[in-house]
Order: sequence, then C-alpha cells, then structure tokens
Amino acid sequence: MANKTTFGISKEKNFSEWFTQIIQKAELADLRYNIKGFLVFQPWSVYSMEKMYAILEKILQGKGHKPYWFPTLIPEANLKKESSHIKGFSPEVFWVTHGGDSEFKDKYALRPTSETAFYQMFSLWVQSYNDLPFKVYQRANIFRYDTKATRPFLRSREFHWIETHCVHETEDDAMKQVHEDMETTEEILHENFCLPFMFFERPAWDKFPGAERTFAADVLNPDGKLVQQPSTHLISQEFSKAFDVKFMDRDKKEKYAYMTCYGPAISRIFASVIIFHGDDKGLNFPWKIAPLQVIIVPIRETNEIEKEIQKLEKKLILSNISVDVDRSDRSLGEKLYFWEMKGVPLRIELGERELQKRRLTVFRRDIGKKEFVAIKDLLKYIEKTSKKIDENLRRKADNLFKNKIVNVKSKDGLQKAIDQGKIARCGFCSVDKNGNDCAEIIEKEVQAEVRGTRLDEKKNDFSKCIICEKESHHVVYVARSY
Amino acid sequence: MANKTTFGISKEKNFSEWFTQIIQKAELADLRYNIKGFLVFQPWSVYSMEKMYAILEKILQGKGHKPYWFPTLIPEANLKKESSHIKGFSPEVFWVTHGGDSEFKDKYALRPTSETAFYQMFSLWVQSYNDLPFKVYQRANIFRYDTKATRPFLRSREFHWIETHCVHETEDDAMKQVHEDMETTEEILHENFCLPFMFFERPAWDKFPGAERTFAADVLNPDGKLVQQPSTHLISQEFSKAFDVKFMDRDKKEKYAYMTCYGPAISRIFASVIIFHGDDKGLNFPWKIAPLQVIIVPIRETNEIEKEIQKLEKKLILSNISVDVDRSDRSLGEKLYFWEMKGVPLRIELGERELQKRRLTVFRRDIGKKEFVAIKDLLKYIEKTSKKIDENLRRKADNLFKNKIVNVKSKDGLQKAIDQGKIARCGFCSVDKNGNDCAEIIEKEVQAEVRGTRLDEKKNDFSKCIICEKESHHVVYVARSY
Repeated sequence: MANKTTFGISKEKNFSEWFTQIIQKAELADLRYNIKGFLVFQPWSVYSMEKMYAILEKILQGKGHKPYWFPTLIPEANLKKESSHIKGFSPEVFWVTHGGDSEFKDKYALRPTSETAFYQMFSLWVQSYNDLPFKVYQRANIFRYDTKATRPFLRSREFHWIETHCVHETEDDAMKQVHEDMETTEEILHENFCLPFMFFERPAWDKFPGAERTFAADVLNPDGKLVQQPSTHLISQEFSKAFDVKFMDRDKKEKYAYMTCYGPAISRIFASVIIFHGDDKGLNFPWKIAPLQVIIVPIRETNEIEKEIQKLEKKLILSNISVDVDRSDRSLGEKLYFWEMKGVPLRIELGERELQKRRLTVFRRDIGKKEFVAIKDLLKYIEKTSKKIDENLRRKADNLFKNKIVNVKSKDGLQKAIDQGKIARCGFCSVDKNGNDCAEIIEKEVQAEVRGTRLDEKKNDFSKCIICEKESHHVVYVARSY
Repeated sequence: MANKTTFGISKEKNFSEWFTQIIQKAELADLRYNIKGFLVFQPWSVYSMEKMYAILEKILQGKGHKPYWFPTLIPEANLKKESSHIKGFSPEVFWVTHGGDSEFKDKYALRPTSETAFYQMFSLWVQSYNDLPFKVYQRANIFRYDTKATRPFLRSREFHWIETHCVHETEDDAMKQVHEDMETTEEILHENFCLPFMFFERPAWDKFPGAERTFAADVLNPDGKLVQQPSTHLISQEFSKAFDVKFMDRDKKEKYAYMTCYGPAISRIFASVIIFHGDDKGLNFPWKIAPLQVIIVPIRETNEIEKEIQKLEKKLILSNISVDVDRSDRSLGEKLYFWEMKGVPLRIELGERELQKRRLTVFRRDIGKKEFVAIKDLLKYIEKTSKKIDENLRRKADNLFKNKIVNVKSKDGLQKAIDQGKIARCGFCSVDKNGNDCAEIIEKEVQAEVRGTRLDEKKNDFSKCIICEKESHHVVYVARSY
C-alpha cells in the first residue's frame, strides 16, 4: 500500500525519470493535452505559481512599476521594425492568419515577448523627461514555437511570465534599472523561493535579440547544470529609433530614450523550485510559495478530535495560513506518505494521545523530523518555524555553491571540471562576436557553454584564453545547462 | 484650468460620447493599438479588475472550484467534435496556422471558450461517481473575431474572464450547480460590485452553442438597455458523448456525466461598473474594487503636514487600504477635480487648519459631500464609511429597477414601453425554436429582444402571445440591449 503513495525514485541517479514522475504523481501538470509542448497546469502547481506571482507583483509595484494588460497578438509589421529582433524570434513565432473564414491581409504573431507591442505605445505615452523613468509590467502568457526538445515547466511552447519594460533618460539610468532588476531577482529567487543562482553578463552571441547587453540569472541545479532564469536587458538604441521612442530633455533637445526589459518566467522558475528543493520522497516547498502550508491529519475520527481540528483550522485561516484537513478514506500510512510527497511544509497529526496531552505532533518536511507543540502555542510555533524552514532551505542553496566553482587553465582541466559537475572559471579571448569560435569549440568538444562574465568581477587573473591561448581579456564561467 | 481636469460630459444626453471620453480621460484603456478590437488595458482599470478577479476567485475556491491553467490553443478537431458548438463559434475563431515558416497539418483555434479543451481532459480525469462533482475554473484571456461593432470593455476581440467547468452525476446535481452559479453572480455583481441585474433563461435561439439550457444575468443600464453579463449553462448530453465523459455510477453502470459551465467576463463586467456608477463628473468606484480607495491631498507643503501624512499613509497601508498621496505640481483645484474624475471613494484633505484642529476634511465621492473626521478616528470612520458607500451604491442599483418593468398586452404597448426605456413583461407563444418567428418580428419592428423567462416565475398571467396572438405559454421579458 505504501508503494501507491511513496515516491521513492532516486533524484540523483535518475534525474530525468524523477522529474517526469514527480510532475505526474504530485499532479503538477498533465502532459496528455493534444498539442506538443503545451501543458495543462493542475491546481497543485497553480496555487504555488499564483503565490509566486503575488510576491513578484508586490515587489515590482513597490518599485514603481505599473500593471498593464497588452493584447496577445502583435502585427508582423511591429516585429519587423527592428531587424535583429525579428531575425532572432521569427523561427519561433506562432502566426495567426485567419479570422473565421477570412484570411488577414497582414498576419499576427502570438507574442513571443512584447517589446514591439509596448514600444509603439511608449512612443505615444512618453513625451518629456518628466515622464521618465516610465516603468511598467504585465503578467502574460508567452508563445514560442521552440524547436529544441520541450520539457514540462522548463521549456514549453506556452509559458507564464511577468515582463517589465522601462523607458529611461540616460544609459546610466538604464543600467541602474538593470541593477534594480538584479536585486529583484535576489529578492524573489533567493529570499522568497530559496534558490541558489548567479548573474552573468551573456557574451555577444547569446544576447536577447535586440539587446545591447544581456544579464541573466543562472540557477544552479543539484546535478551541476545551470538553468537560465530571469534575464534583464539593456535594449539597443536601434530599437528606440525603430519605434520613435524619444522625449524632450531638460536641455530642450529631443533625444532617443534608453529602454530596459526584464522577464521572470514564473512557470520556468517553478521548475527550479521542484528540482532544487525536491528529493527522493517528493516535493518540498519553501513556506511562502507552498500550495498548502499546513495539512492536518486526524489520527482517529472522534467528535472530540474533529471539534479540536475545526478550532485549529479556523485559527490558522484567520492568521492567513493556507491549511487543509485530510478527512479522506485513505489509510493513515498513505496519508502521511502522500502529504510528504506533495511537499507540504508542516503536517499536524492529532489523535487521542495528542488531545489528552494538549500537544500536537508536527512533522517538518524540510528536515523530515517530528516536533511536539502545545496546542495553545501553535501559532507562535508556526511563526517561528516558517522562518526556520526557509532559512534552512536557503542555507542548503548557499552551500551548494561551495566548492562548485573551480579555476581551470587548460582544456583538459576544463573538461575534467565540467565532467565532475563543476562550474569552470577561466580566461577567455573575447566576449564580443570574435570569441564565438572559441565558444563553439567549448560547446562541441566539452559539451558545455560559456555562460558569461560577472559584473562584480573586475580582476582578470588569467593570462591566456583557455581555447585559443591568445591573450585573455575576460574571466568567463563555463558550465552545462538545461 | 478646471476644464483640463473636470470631466463634465452629460452621461444622460450623450452616453456614447461620455463612455468613449471617460475611458481616455481616466486612462482606463488606450484604443490606439494597431489591431482592430484589441485594447491596451491601463493601470487604472487593471488595478480594479485584479481586485475583481481576487474577489471572484476567493468565492469560487470557497465553493470547491480548483484552479487550472489550460493552453490557449485548441486543435480544430476538438472544436469539431460537437456540431452545434463548432457551428456557433467557427465564424468567430482566430486560427493559428503556422509555427515559424512551417504550416501546421491541423490548425489551432485561439480559445473562444474552453469546453473542448477541458472536456477531453475530463474524460481522462473522471472515472467514478467518487470523483464527482468535479469543479474547476481558470482565469484566461479569450479571443473572438466578433463581427459586430467592437466597443471597449463591452465587446473586444480579446477579453479577460474566468470560466468554470463542472462535471456532475445527475441532471439534478447539474441544475443545483446552475443555481450556485446564480448565487455567485449575486455575490459578485450585487454584493461586491453594487450592480443591478436580473437572471433570465434564454430562449432556444439565444442559447450558448452546445447548451441544453442557458441562464444569463442582464445588467440594467441607466438608459434602460441591458448588458449581458455572466451566464451559466447546462451543457447538452451530446457534449458528454462527443468527448466520452462518463463514470462508473453507484449502481456499477457506466453513465454519461452532466456538465455545466459559467463565464464571468471581468473586462466586460468592468464596463458595467464604469457605466452604472459613473456620472457627469467621471468615474465612481464601489469600495472593494476601487483601483485606489483613499487619496490624500496636502493643502500646503509644510514639514508638519508631510509628517502627519506619512503617519496616516502608513496606518492605512497596515490596515490593507489602498492609498496614495498626490504630491504632484498640479494646482489644488486640479487635484480635487482629477481624483473626483478618477472615482476614488475617499479624498482626504490635510492643511494647516486640519492639523490645528486635529481633524481631516474627507470628501465622499459617492454622495459628493465633505465630512469632518478626527485624525485619531480615521480608521474607525473608514471602516464604517466604506460599508455605507457600498450600501448607498447598492440602494441606487436596487432603485433603478423600481417602475422599470411594465406589463404590456399589445404590440403598440410593447413599442411604447421599449421607447420609454422600460423592460416589457408580456405573454409569448413559445421559447423553443417555434417562437423564433415572433422574436424576429420584435427584433425587426420594435428593435428589441426577447431576453427570456425567469426561473422563479411560475405564474402565466397573460393569455395571448404579444405578437402572433396564439396561446401564451410563457411570460417573457423584452428589452433593448448592448
């Protein structure tokens, strides 16, 4: 019977199988929808992702971003206005060509990202330096006819994100926004979702199509691979010119504006939450984004126990804690395994013994241990423990980076480091397009990628490029990725 | 200067102009996006609609509906499975035909509604009577290539709604769900958004394509016209059969399930909120869905005033009240008119006199009057007044129905009632397809529509059909609509 509900697949030995199985067993998404790469997101993931949205939107609004809802459709002409943008995105665009029986003269894209929708409105909305910075965002679903293998949550053809778009007076202001976006990433990924990540400035060949500079957060997977998560971009001036986004400056001169954008993909970040925190027993949610924070399991069904449970439930709801009671006809053993697999942070057991002693048995999913709590102290216990759970998960995240980064000085050393699941730090000839050849050698021969440089790293302690052995101009980080 | 910020267009004399102007002046939506019928929803409407979503989702979850996110795309084959459904929707479907350069073998619809997406999953998820009722919902954007004239919020080609879908054991259970949906409508439209409405069962020729029975809430506009708002549907068994949604019943027999669906269109309901509550001075929001509940306007800029304002702001935020301070360089007169036009329920003015007397001047948008409140009593005042505001708006809504419905017994009487902006109640031959001829005469000659019958009305106090003068089998309601 336990087999029915325990999870018990080794995440370390068979990560792919573990990931596929947990999505089905925990009912995070149903993969049987009849369009390739499109998922049905089920309640257990939606509850959590809605909490993720709420946290992120509150942070963005607190930093002065205002919410918009833009159309999902973008005329082809908009996409074509900036040449590197259309070149980058056109192979991935889903095209809407007909309404009813009639064919449209010009086709419409399902937004693969919305710069070209926002920017044409910015040219109407932004007139003077007084209007700047102009900071907006939208919660939206995004469509990309991705030709790479799709993978639930990580890479699907429709996904759910927030995109922020900003207009600035100067390039300096724009770079300040990039730093603000990096701080926002720290607040969501690390402080709230307890994930380990690092920011890299991407090399020229890996920039967002239409960006001058691209900065991306790579989340570290337990297996050593990286997953690209939110990225923030300094948009090229070509874009402002193409969309005529200009303003009257303090000096009465008309100038083209500087733009930035930032795109945390909630459904993709959720993948990192599953992958990073989950274990062989199943999911394991940080407190603030748990679909359910507390599950109460009655050990027996008596009137007294039921009465006490109802009192507890009411108390928790009043304190804004999400709680449910498992009154199903599953066996007690099944219930305990089931909620462990579902990753609920706290499981409260209440039977006759607990009632007699006026104390609850509480199981903490993060450390897999039981604790005893006086009924009257429950709220205080939860307040303290919810913080401890997240601290504990964050500590796990931080520890993962220890000994993860190794300096390498030869291709052999690079290969060895990568094969051990490390992130290799090395010298590199050039991160503009001239370095692309060396990057391709790394990709083909080492099966790894140049993730970029670090903004906070000024010192270049390598003399030669790890591949061509010409002079090293940058310290880059190389790793495998999903 | 006042002209720049006062609204001052007569809603009664020139409703269309009023509606168009208020959308632009209050920055609810920008109509200049370059696809016909697609809007850019701006922050002032988005804040309010997000509050509407939160209220509705909380109610639905409280009644046992679970949230899903389904794909936006639906294969054509799904839509074709039930013949009346595809017939009803196919002229309105936006079709996705290409991904990048390659044409899809089978085209995909942008969901015009999602029965055919949900039902194929229901056939996988529902196995036994134990799984029923199965109650779900999703928040989604919907696409209809509507051939009628588009009108911002009321009828746009992409709109934002919640759709609920339920599976039931018996037709009785399904009808109970229809009644629950009607109660939900009462809770959102009347209790929370303070709108007047009536439920009608639609005649056969006006049902949802694929429904056995359709029940729709018509909101009463101040000009006497009706606007269709949430509708709930008992889905025909043809649909369960087409999608093979069946279950093993208590008697061990396999049976086809009964399904219902319900679709409150938030962006359309928002139109009714603007139209019903707005007046010649601008918008006027009910408390719970106001984009901003309190605006604080400093009468002068002194350190003491600023310090007091910051204290007040903090206090209100801690009490979960949305509040902002107008520190712009507009003149005081402009500020007062501006926030009245924006429909903020409470405007607090704070100057030296107020500070001296330790009492605030508070302007109530709903009654257009100033009240004086001791600074220390502000929270208590807001708690009480927020309720009063909504009661006041609800009373206005309820009063609108008084003397609005008139019994008519002849075509002339019908014409006169309709021309006076009334809802006519009359005898009618038949609400199945046999009555369609009489309904068409009403539409062509009286320019009005048979909105349907009332579920709570059993008595037929008319002997003859108002048009063909054959025996009356139903009491119907006739009105003009948007």
